[in-house]
Amino acid sequence: MAVQERAVRTRNALIVSAAELFDRDGFEVASLSMISARAGVSSGALHFHFSSKAALADAVGQEAAQRLEMIIRQRGDGGLQVLIDATHALVRALDRDAVLRAGFGLSDRAERDQVGAGLRRVWQEWVEGVLVRAEGEGVLAGGPSVRDAVTAVVAVTAGLETLGRQDASWLSQTPLTRFWGLLLPRLAAASCLETLVASGTCTPTVTASASAP
Amino acid sequence: MAVQERAVRTRNALIVSAAELFDRDGFEVASLSMISARAGVSSGALHFHFSSKAALADAVGQEAAQRLEMIIRQRGDGGLQVLIDATHALVRALDRDAVLRAGFGLSDRAERDQVGAGLRRVWQEWVEGVLVRAEGEGVLAGGPSVRDAVTAVVAVTAGLETLGRQDASWLSQTPLTRFWGLLLPRLAAASCLETLVASGTCTPTVTASASAP
Repeated sequence: MAVQERAVRTRNALIVSAAELFDRDGFEVASLSMISARAGVSSGALHFHFSSKAALADAVGQEAAQRLEMIIRQRGDGGLQVLIDATHALVRALDRDAVLRAGFGLSDRAERDQVGAGLRRVWQEWVEGVLVRAEGEGVLAGGPSVRDAVTAVVAVTAGLETLGRQDASWLSQTPLTRFWGLLLPRLAAASCLETLVASGTCTPTVTASASAP
Repeated sequence: MAVQERAVRTRNALIVSAAELFDRDGFEVASLSMISARAGVSSGALHFHFSSKAALADAVGQEAAQRLEMIIRQRGDGGLQVLIDATHALVRALDRDAVLRAGFGLSDRAERDQVGAGLRRVWQEWVEGVLVRAEGEGVLAGGPSVRDAVTAVVAVTAGLETLGRQDASWLSQTPLTRFWGLLLPRLAAASCLETLVASGTCTPTVTASASAP
């Protein structure tokens, strides 16, 4: 393995290890020695890549932001189904991916609020953009405003994230499907309602295909 | 002041101080010396009342559970307006009351999950009870199940709590009013819909009347 490739692998292993420990134990409790041991690297190697735990937290936040971007960018551009599918993809990822969970979780610490606030802002702005376009395309029902829908979608996804920390069943497909089943008849134009699938449509991701036989 | 009364005051001051620091800095960062200093009592007095930080966290969780009970018990017994009003009261309390925020926040720590999980369970079971009764009284629309509505209400209130840690405007009246405005036409029987107020009806609390001129 080339030296540079090995360095990239070590750095990634440290980011994942830090995310898992931040997510499980909290930023304050996770120590640099626990993080390097879990990554299977020396403490010297950790210090070569990261000058402090705060630098590691920044790297976790940036990696989480990239993963959120992938969830968003994989979707098409418009329509309510794209939004439904993205919320399911986000919730699935929150269930499986400690980096994404840690990225959002770091936001609850005042000192790190720029990282987490960044993730939340990206998500909220994307949700808003999809709904504004959906309104322009005439696929929303009259009545509720885009703002009402943005508020409900952003609050519900944040709520599933929080509740999922205690009870992973909140991050299964069912609760979000219940929410969309409740919301869609209010939100979608009658002409579109029949075509929408509250439980999400199949959009294979890199992760899903990698785990296929 | 009688000795016993002073002891109760000291104990309460320590619980509030601990809650404020747990909420602001996190359980791990808040130290017993910071907690006693903020409460204006000696470290000896702290140790007289609480043997450890974990014991203080338990006391914060119990006090938060009592405050949640008050929010719930103050409401009437049935009907959707009671549920709407209770969600507004909870969100208002989360905005103002560090003890309640800390009680829910402690739940995100694995070691304390019984406390926070307890708060969340009490809230969820109460929401479910109100909706089951509402269904029995015929004030729910056909279509959505009680379970759908419980999921949406519990997820949204948890989401507002989480988002409010970064941006207090999520704990203002507006986001929750938007949610109810969106949900009610799906949830309420047509005959009841006109009488329901998405922004909540006035139910003065002890706190509110104490702050009145």
